[in-house]
This record gives sequence, structure tokens and C-alpha cells, in this order.
Amino acid sequence: MGSKKICDVKGIKAAGVAAGIKKNGKKDVALIVSELPANAVGVFTVNRVKAAPVLISQAHLQSGKARAIIMTSGNANAATGEEGRNIARTLCEHAAELIGCAPEEVLIAQTGLIGIPLDGKIAAAGVKKAFDELSDKGSDHAAEAIMTTDTKPKHSSQELLVGNQRILIAGIAKGAAMLSPSMATMLASIVTDAAVTNEVMDYALRSAMHDSFHAMVVDGCRSTNDTVFLLANGAAGNKIIDSILQPEYRLFEDAVSNVCKDLARQMAADAEGAGKFLTMRVQGAADKSEAMLAAKAVVSSALVKCSLAGENAYWGRVLSELGASGAEFNPDTVEIRYGDFIVCKNGMAYAHDEEQVDAYMRTREITITATIGSGKGEAEAYGCDLTHAYVDENMGKS
Amino acid sequence: MGSKKICDVKGIKAAGVAAGIKKNGKKDVALIVSELPANAVGVFTVNRVKAAPVLISQAHLQSGKARAIIMTSGNANAATGEEGRNIARTLCEHAAELIGCAPEEVLIAQTGLIGIPLDGKIAAAGVKKAFDELSDKGSDHAAEAIMTTDTKPKHSSQELLVGNQRILIAGIAKGAAMLSPSMATMLASIVTDAAVTNEVMDYALRSAMHDSFHAMVVDGCRSTNDTVFLLANGAAGNKIIDSILQPEYRLFEDAVSNVCKDLARQMAADAEGAGKFLTMRVQGAADKSEAMLAAKAVVSSALVKCSLAGENAYWGRVLSELGASGAEFNPDTVEIRYGDFIVCKNGMAYAHDEEQVDAYMRTREITITATIGSGKGEAEAYGCDLTHAYVDENMGKS
Repeated sequence: MGSKKICDVKGIKAAGVAAGIKKNGKKDVALIVSELPANAVGVFTVNRVKAAPVLISQAHLQSGKARAIIMTSGNANAATGEEGRNIARTLCEHAAELIGCAPEEVLIAQTGLIGIPLDGKIAAAGVKKAFDELSDKGSDHAAEAIMTTDTKPKHSSQELLVGNQRILIAGIAKGAAMLSPSMATMLASIVTDAAVTNEVMDYALRSAMHDSFHAMVVDGCRSTNDTVFLLANGAAGNKIIDSILQPEYRLFEDAVSNVCKDLARQMAADAEGAGKFLTMRVQGAADKSEAMLAAKAVVSSALVKCSLAGENAYWGRVLSELGASGAEFNPDTVEIRYGDFIVCKNGMAYAHDEEQVDAYMRTREITITATIGSGKGEAEAYGCDLTHAYVDENMGKS
Repeated sequence: MGSKKICDVKGIKAAGVAAGIKKNGKKDVALIVSELPANAVGVFTVNRVKAAPVLISQAHLQSGKARAIIMTSGNANAATGEEGRNIARTLCEHAAELIGCAPEEVLIAQTGLIGIPLDGKIAAAGVKKAFDELSDKGSDHAAEAIMTTDTKPKHSSQELLVGNQRILIAGIAKGAAMLSPSMATMLASIVTDAAVTNEVMDYALRSAMHDSFHAMVVDGCRSTNDTVFLLANGAAGNKIIDSILQPEYRLFEDAVSNVCKDLARQMAADAEGAGKFLTMRVQGAADKSEAMLAAKAVVSSALVKCSLAGENAYWGRVLSELGASGAEFNPDTVEIRYGDFIVCKNGMAYAHDEEQVDAYMRTREITITATIGSGKGEAEAYGCDLTHAYVDENMGKS
């Protein structure tokens, strides 16, 4: 993936500041501003309990335009009632006034503890401070300001050519629920200088979800606050991509998808309390969605995750989870590999070099491949192990 | 619940012996025999990967009659291919010969590690040994012989009157997957001296599942081996229960359901690696299935389970899981209680005595009650916390 960051996108400025929402003095308010009005779309949690910023952003996205994104960490502003919604709305109005745009052109995403009233004044002062520090060097600060239990800021970018115009897509993100769940939320903001219609952006972003954030084992799509924004300000000056039938659309979708996938993998790899990163590949399924169903069942399994923590190639659990996934297959034809080592063939134990497999299990990045039939469906899901550190991190409130 | 055991059921003998399937010399083969041919039904795992004993028992139950149940622990005989199925079949034939019945009248359930070939000779010798030790004092031995990571044998019984006849329903069980998952299986055998048709028994057993084994958070219904058998030998001499419209049917179903619920609660309470037992009650849902959907989402949550281990009344996670469950409700009307203490009202934090709630969280049996609306649907699900011990137990192969 590219090494560029959000402020490398034409017309984008950003900042990240410490406002005091987090008690430890770390950065907690990010602001991303597009000089030009951008087309904007979003994907949100499907949780019935939606945090205040989710509800406000959904309303603001009705216009399809945005100038700015506020992202805060340390308090989810979820389960905070009408008062919480007023605060989220007021923060957008405050930013709009500073920027000189309509309140509906400001989006907001928040992450942190659920059910604790957010101090609106502290957050508003943070937005002001971030506005004052906006610059084209603010990418790192913004990425840092949205971190909760993440140990590293997360950036990703990809460039592509549309006609003769070079387009940049860049995003920042913070870790996901099942990975670092004390602050149970996954947030990402992706910006691009492409000229592209809302309809096409929406299609591209939703398509990109499947192989990225939705392929990671997360409470991701289930927390109260999960949000992914995509803003496109057209500053690249390309001929507008206005149909998913154009050849340029495919390039655009792939690039958005790659950025999302890279951010998702960074989230899984940075899971606090996790010692190992698991890629579960399922092949030979009837179709891709069956393959994904099976792959996700394996990375979701507490048993498989514990085996991974124990550096134990207990493929019986993998087979059992494939069987429990709901995917259709004949158990007597399944092959399972850990790395390159076949450990199960025709649904039964397959003799293998235990020392080599044990050595493989001691590495940090494990790939398990299950071939469950002769279909063309294949998919990868991402996850991590289940450790003492995970339990410790989630026993308390913070 | 009653203190009677399976051998108190008229015409039932049982035994439990150590055959050497378990390497540690503990009991590992149980045999339950009915002197009279019994009507028999079973409920099995929905996992696509079905262990050999599940496939053989399903075939044998076509006849609707049984004389005996073999239950073994230490090896699941799952992912063992045609050879594994031959062994399960041969064990039934062996028992049938000893008892003097058709092989189809013998059922089999096994639990233990997946993907390891079972030594058929050792198991067969165990069946012979158990047959030789059959007695009307074998209940405890049988219950012990099916234990894996369980710390206590599990018995339950209930008596009822059908007309003037006293009927006894009694069962034994071993713990469930998500609770003690190294040996990822939940097994139960329930016997009764009632006279009842297969159709009625099947209906009663399936109905009983919902509030018992299916209400417990388990990979239970998902492992390769999960099995519940119900045998009724008619020795009580009651007028046969042959319709679910008879008043006696309701009594029978309730009694079967109570035995199943009691066994399920014992499984959850005995979860190794678990320090706390959680009862999650959901009220005010549109209907019972919505309430159960919501309750199970909460007891399944790794986050809620970690909070419980940390003795932390973090209701925000409970609310979030209710929202993610798919149940329909208005988040702004939710009330959540820990024990008798209201901690969330109208979907927001509710002032409470923290010291009292903290003291409550230090107790072993926690009940959380969520009222999610004004509907009549209510349900209870059962679970436990997520601890270091759970991780430790499941890091290795055994």
C-alpha cells in the first residue's frame, strides 16, 4: 500500500489535539476539513442502539455533501439520550461556524465508553483547538487523536490514474471491538480528491466493506458507534466517475477496497491483548458468500482463538466451526492446512511433521487454509488469538 | 428438582467403568439399559460435521425403539471417517449381543477430542465391562463416566402423576462446549418409565430444548457430537400419553423441560474456568423468541463475560449487545437491573448505590434483567464469565 496520508489528498487539512475528554492528557479530538465541498457517504453500525454521533451523521449525510469530519475518542456519546444528541449536533454547528459551511456539512464519529455523559464544553473547546491547528501536516495527529486501546496509528493510501489524472485515496482508522473492545468501536475516515458521484461512492464503499471491515472479526459491525466515512472533493480534476459501468469505476472500487482491507488488517494485527494475527482462507465453497460465512465462523471461535494462543494446531476445532458455520459442504472431503502443512485430508487427520507445524505455530502471523469442496468460492477473514491480556483488558471499565 | 436418579426409573439399570479411553484411568464408558423395549427419540447437533456416534444413532432411531445407550468420554470419534463409523456401529452390535436385542435398539453418544482415531477394541472391552457391572445402583458411575472437564456429575429428576400412576423422569448430563470446551460437547440421556408415544416424546423433547440446552450459551448446539436422548419404557403402567392435546401431555412436557433446564443450569454453573454463573432475563419483548434472541446475545458476549469476571456492572455492554441481537426495541426505553439494582433507565445511566452494586457483583450468581419494551415476551438465558482459567484450559489440546 502507499505511504501517503490523508493530508496528501488535494484540498485536505487535518489536526489532532488533546482536549481533555481522555483523562490521561492524550489527543482526543481530530478534525478533517476539505477546502472544497466534498461528496460524502457513510456506512454505520447496524446496532439498534446507535450512538448520538451516528444518528446525527446519518441525518447530515442526507445532503450528500460534507466539508468536515469531527472524530473524538474517550467517550462514545452512546446511551446518552437527547442530551447526547444535542451535544453531537452542537459540535457540528460549532465546527460549521468556524469553517464557514452549513452544519449539515459536518460529520461526526465518536468512540469510547458507553453510557457516560459527554462534557459538551470540553469537546467544543477541542474542536476549536483542532480548527486552529488545521494544516496539511496534520495526518499523524488526527490518526493519533482517534486511538483508544490501539498501540499504533493506522494510515493507508492508494493512488490510481483516472484518464490522465492521478487520484489519491487515503484513510485513517482506529481498532475494532472484538480486538480492543474496552472502547468497543471501529472508526475510519477515508478521503479522496477523485471526482465521483455519491451514488458511485456509496456503491464502492459498500462493496469494499465485504472483504475488509466485515471480514475482520469484530463486534465491528455491531458496536453502537462503528462508522466509516468516504469523502471525495473532486480536486484531482478527473472526468467524473458517475456510473458503476464505467471501466474507471472498477479501478476506483478496487482502490477503495484495498485501503479498507489494509486498514482492517492493521486493526486485527494491532489488537491489544493479542499475540497472533490469523488469516483464515476458505476455498472450494459454492460461492464467495458461503466461503466468507465459513471463514468468519472460524476466526470468531473462542476455541480456535485459544488454540492459537496456545500455539496449537488443533484442526478439529477448525473443522467443527466450519461445520457449524451454516456453509454447505461435504465433511468427508475437507482439507485443512496450517501455513503450507496439510494436517487434515478427507475430513480426517493427515500425518504431518509435528515439529515443523509446531515451529510454524510459534510465528506471529498464522494462515489457515480450508478447502471445503470444488466450488469457485473463496474468501479470507481476519482475526486474532484470545489471551490473558484480552481478558485483563476487558475486566474493568477502561 | 427431585433427588432421584436414572436407576430409580422402573426397569432401568446402569453402569460406568474405566476402559482406558481416557489415559488418566478415570471412568470413560457408561451403559444404560432398559429391561423393557423403550420408545426413544433424540436431538442432535446441527453441525454439518457430525461425529460417527451421531450418524449411527440417527440411523438407529429410525426404528423409534431402544433398549440401551452407550456413552463414552475421552475421544469424540469425530472426523474419523468410515473407520470411525464402523467402530460406533460395532460397539452397538456388541452391546446388542450382550443384551439380547437388535443392534438398532442401541444408541451411542461420545465426547472428547476431535480427529483422533478411537481404539475400537478398548471401547468394546469397556462396553463388556459396563454390561457386567449393570445394576440398579449404577446411576452415579454412569454420570461419572461421561464427565470430561466437568467437576461434578450432573443428575436431575422429576416425578409426576399421570392418572393414578407415579411417573419418574431422570437424566444425566455432561458439560457443554463454550463452558468446558476442550472436550467440546454436551451430552444428556434422559429416561422415564412413562408410557408415551414417540411422536409425543419427540414434541416434548424439542419443546424442552428452547428453555434449557438452547438457552445456555454453548457451542452446545454447534459441536460435532451434541446429543440428547429420551427413552420411555412404559413400566409405570400409566394410560399412554398419545396426543399433545391431552391434559397429561402438558404435565409431561413441563417435567421433561424442568429436567432439561436443571441439567443445563448445572452445566453452566459447573463451567470449568468460570467463576460466575449468569442468568440474563429479558422482559417486555414483542414475543418470547425476540426475548430469547436478546438474552442469548448478552450471555454470548465476550465483553459482557469479561466484565463479569472483573465484577464490573458495565451495563453499556449489555445495552450494546441487546442492540446487536437483532431483537426489535426502542433503545430510549430500556431499563437494566443488576440483581435488584436499576443501573440504566430510559436507555441512559441511572444513579445507583455503587457500593451496593459492587457488593452484588462480587457474588457468584449474577442475574441481569433488561426490560426492553412493554411486550409480553420474556426469556432467560444462562452463561458464565470469561477468565484466565478458560483461556488456559483451551490453549492446549486437552
